Amino acid sequence: MVRSGTNLPRVADYNQGIVLEAIRIVDGISRVEIAESTGLTAQTVSNIVKRLIDRRLVVETDKVVSGGGKPRVMLRANPDSAYAVGVQIDGDETSFIVADLTGRVVSRDRHPTSQELGPSGVIEQVASAIEHIVEKAEIPSDKILGVGVACPGPLDRAKGVVFQPPNLRDWQEVPLKDLLEKKTGYPVTVDNDATAAAIGERWFGGAKSTSNFAFIYAGVGIGAGLFVEDHVYRGTTANAGEFGHISLNPEGPECFCGNRGCVEFYCSPSGLTREVLRRLKRGEPSSLKAMFDSGVERVDFEAVSHAALSGDKLATEELRKSATLLGYGVVNLVNLLDVELVVLGGKGFRDLGQIYKQEIERVLHKRLIARQFRQIKVRLSEAGDDAGALGAASLILYKTYSPQLTGLERI
Amino acid sequence: MVRSGTNLPRVADYNQGIVLEAIRIVDGISRVEIAESTGLTAQTVSNIVKRLIDRRLVVETDKVVSGGGKPRVMLRANPDSAYAVGVQIDGDETSFIVADLTGRVVSRDRHPTSQELGPSGVIEQVASAIEHIVEKAEIPSDKILGVGVACPGPLDRAKGVVFQPPNLRDWQEVPLKDLLEKKTGYPVTVDNDATAAAIGERWFGGAKSTSNFAFIYAGVGIGAGLFVEDHVYRGTTANAGEFGHISLNPEGPECFCGNRGCVEFYCSPSGLTREVLRRLKRGEPSSLKAMFDSGVERVDFEAVSHAALSGDKLATEELRKSATLLGYGVVNLVNLLDVELVVLGGKGFRDLGQIYKQEIERVLHKRLIARQFRQIKVRLSEAGDDAGALGAASLILYKTYSPQLTGLERI
Repeated sequence: MVRSGTNLPRVADYNQGIVLEAIRIVDGISRVEIAESTGLTAQTVSNIVKRLIDRRLVVETDKVVSGGGKPRVMLRANPDSAYAVGVQIDGDETSFIVADLTGRVVSRDRHPTSQELGPSGVIEQVASAIEHIVEKAEIPSDKILGVGVACPGPLDRAKGVVFQPPNLRDWQEVPLKDLLEKKTGYPVTVDNDATAAAIGERWFGGAKSTSNFAFIYAGVGIGAGLFVEDHVYRGTTANAGEFGHISLNPEGPECFCGNRGCVEFYCSPSGLTREVLRRLKRGEPSSLKAMFDSGVERVDFEAVSHAALSGDKLATEELRKSATLLGYGVVNLVNLLDVELVVLGGKGFRDLGQIYKQEIERVLHKRLIARQFRQIKVRLSEAGDDAGALGAASLILYKTYSPQLTGLERI
Repeated sequence: MVRSGTNLPRVADYNQGIVLEAIRIVDGISRVEIAESTGLTAQTVSNIVKRLIDRRLVVETDKVVSGGGKPRVMLRANPDSAYAVGVQIDGDETSFIVADLTGRVVSRDRHPTSQELGPSGVIEQVASAIEHIVEKAEIPSDKILGVGVACPGPLDRAKGVVFQPPNLRDWQEVPLKDLLEKKTGYPVTVDNDATAAAIGERWFGGAKSTSNFAFIYAGVGIGAGLFVEDHVYRGTTANAGEFGHISLNPEGPECFCGNRGCVEFYCSPSGLTREVLRRLKRGEPSSLKAMFDSGVERVDFEAVSHAALSGDKLATEELRKSATLLGYGVVNLVNLLDVELVVLGGKGFRDLGQIYKQEIERVLHKRLIARQFRQIKVRLSEAGDDAGALGAASLILYKTYSPQLTGLERI
């Protein structure tokens, strides 16, 4: 009920995080510039930089002469100082990445998720794949800070337990963190995929210095990861960001979540595919007709995406509808949260991302209450297909190095 | 772009804010208990408490013997140590309050807003009324920390400039803060009414120790004030909380905001009144018919509220619809933000608050995605009719005493 105070070691960590963040954001910054931009004294910056160099997190590189002053030594993050493994487990496939401190992917891998083996079999395979990818990357294991795992929710993040995600069969209360720590020997952090993607975008991607943003992640479902005042926001029970279950039509079709007319129902890959199939079943003309006739299950999201990009009228119309509705959802989110950036990522935006982006921008420009006062940026995640796994890797780096003052409730 | 670091004076202020908060929340707490609950050392707590007592913000009261230990001196906030004036300016009337550190209202007043005098005339009247209420309260002016003003938005909070609120005629870029500071001699802080109400609920009311909550404020319009991880959240451009402009029907009636089918359109006092009038015009039976026939303008929100509470079928039906739709809006808000508490306040909930509350609870219980995992509390503001003016007063106390570490972007 009562909040925690803070103490000097925490402040030292916080300021160290701030300095490391400044160096990571600017990539080539002098001590003087760090002091100017962070408001810390030159002495404090100098001490912190010394510690960061001693720990090999930061390196001195070139000297820059500006004005008539003496040359300033540029500081950069040392990519080679720390690595993290990122794993994204999804119903169909599992992705693996080893990333360095600066987000460079040094090794990646991808396997089908062998759901028939059950949770313990899948975890066994994940552990071997981690071992394999670390070996392949030729990184000494003491430089690996840990393994981040991104999963569809619901899950208990603190304990690392996964509860029955809709697309992971038989995963009932699986202690993923404990099992994977035992098998790999690395510390493991588990988080939901949209939150992991948002942390990845903040640590590695296009939101390095963005205080307030939403990452809209479209995998099988749709969720949002939220950054609020420079911190990831998970809510009171770690259930924030259920953007897919905002209603666009409270009298609409019932969703498994209890609500009706949800964003996910209309705008997810499966929602778009469902609407295209509905019209194909009615016999409407489309370039997908031959495929549909040869086997309805062949008309999947990939086929629909391809048809829409090839100019098929039916698929294009449905895609446009889906994107417009997603735009309405984003208007609600931005009116409520006043974020400055919306990032789109995940498999659902792989091929169609540009079209969703443009339509969301159009709707925001028309419907946002404060549209005269501000410009909301909409961007596709720089991580592309890696958003999930790279986000998972970033969980470890964010947890270890990001500035956190009141560490009890945050991180 | 780069975040600021922090320093020792700020940490000292922060911990002092944390200790004062603990004392205000518990109202009768010992130094040992403060150390236990905040994690601060006994020495730190002891030093801070000494400072707070020296500044007369805290007083030692009774001694309590617990277990076999020596009696512990109880600490309480000293109501008499600091006061703030709160002013809520609305289109029809302006409310004034003087409140002490603990939220006790020592004096209140209310005047019609003489809009015919124009902004400068209104501000002149507000200044005289402030002088008058402070005199009436018999408080030495050096104990008045400042004047908080709650206004309908949009406004530039930092500069204290009001931009054309829909219900304040001719208020175009009015430098309210500067004008009022000159006339009264007190420091003035301006904020929008929903945000002020949320800060009031956190400082004085039922959300003293609630980390994440939304205050849904119904005046002429509907807005939300948001608390996120123990801080008021205003968003990137101070436009967060536009809950009234979340869409419940993207194809619905156009709103002045650019969106369609907004919460405000369906659920605000004027929305409810409009729907009742629409049915009265069609000649539907109602206890409001005689009043309607004698003058359509007489059927205002108060009349509709009265009819609904007296069991009039037509008014009751429309009230229920309005409350259900508000519930759908709250589901969207909670699915996105995972707050633990929703507070209802402002004139729109004065008479009908209980009915809105019950219906919102019913809808949340049915439609929230994580309803199995958590219980969302819905409450009427303890401040009742004073929510706006008391919230305005709290702006000053919150700004002066609440724990803020990274003071540049927050407060």
